[in-house]
Amino acid sequence: MQTEAREMWMSWLRDAHAMEAQAETMLNAQAGRLENYPALRMRIEQHLRETTAQREALERLFATLGEDVSAVKAGMGKLMALGQGMAGAFASDEVMKGSLASYAFEHMEIASYTALIAGAEELGLTEAVAVLTPILEQERAMADWLAENLPPLTRSFLARAEADLEAKR
Amino acid sequence: MQTEAREMWMSWLRDAHAMEAQAETMLNAQAGRLENYPALRMRIEQHLRETTAQREALERLFATLGEDVSAVKAGMGKLMALGQGMAGAFASDEVMKGSLASYAFEHMEIASYTALIAGAEELGLTEAVAVLTPILEQERAMADWLAENLPPLTRSFLARAEADLEAKR
Repeated sequence: MQTEAREMWMSWLRDAHAMEAQAETMLNAQAGRLENYPALRMRIEQHLRETTAQREALERLFATLGEDVSAVKAGMGKLMALGQGMAGAFASDEVMKGSLASYAFEHMEIASYTALIAGAEELGLTEAVAVLTPILEQERAMADWLAENLPPLTRSFLARAEADLEAKR
Repeated sequence: MQTEAREMWMSWLRDAHAMEAQAETMLNAQAGRLENYPALRMRIEQHLRETTAQREALERLFATLGEDVSAVKAGMGKLMALGQGMAGAFASDEVMKGSLASYAFEHMEIASYTALIAGAEELGLTEAVAVLTPILEQERAMADWLAENLPPLTRSFLARAEADLEAKR
C-alpha cells in the first residue's frame, strides 16, 4: 500500500540521494583545489569516500523498499535549488568560503536525515532507519570536525594573508 | 594601520551584514506564509526580531571600527552566492524544505560568526568580539530549536498529509 505519507517520504529519500551525488562532485572539486591546508584536504578526502558509500547505501535501500533504482539514478540531474546554490559557494577557490559552505551543507544533510529517520519511524520503515542512522552519524562527525577546525583554520588563513603567502587555497 | 588580514576580516564582516539583511527578508516571507505550524511561526517571528537587532548591532560595529556604514548599507544588494541559492529554498512554500534550508542557513551564520570571532581575537579587535559573541549565541539557540523541533514537525507534516489536510504550510 502506497500512502500519501510514504510517497512524500520517498520523495525526500530521492532528494537525499541527489544531495549525496552532488556532495561527491563538490567534495571532489574542493579536495583537488586545496594546496596549503593538508589536514582539511585529508578530512575532505575521507568524507568523499564516505559520501560515495552513502550514495550506494541509499541505492540499495531503494531496492529494498521496492523502488526503481534506475529511475532514481536517472533523476539525479534534477537537484534541489538549495544544493545548486551551495555548489556555487563550493566552487569558490577561497578556503574560508568553502569551509562555511561545507559546514552549512553538512547541516542540510543532518536535517535531511533527521527528518527521514523521524518519518521512517512513523511509517514503520525499520530497514530504512537502520541504513540512515549510521549515515547521520557520519554527517555529524564531519560537521563536528569542521566546527572544531574553523578557528585554527581562520587563524592560519589570516596569518598567511598577513605574511603575503598564498592563503586562499 | 590597515593590514591585509584586517582588510580581509572586514570583508567577512560586510558579508555577515549582508547575510543578516537577507535573513530578515527570508524569515519575513517564511513567517507570513506559515498557516498550520504556529510554534514554528512564533519562533521564526522571534528570530526575525533578533535578526533585525543583529543587523543594527553590526552597523554600529562598523562605525566603532571606523568603517563607512553608508557604504556597507549600499553594498547590501551584493550578496554571497550561497545566500542567494538558499533564498530559493526559503521561497519554497513547503514547510519541510523551508525548515531544512533554515537549519542550513543558521549553520552558515554560526560558521561565519565563529570565523569572525576567531579572526577578531587574532587581530585584537576586542570590541568586535564583545558584539559578535552574543549574536553567535542567538544563532546557536535558533539552530538548536530547529533541530529539536524537526522530528515532531516531520511527524505532524506526514500525519496531515495522510489525513489529506493542507500539510505544506
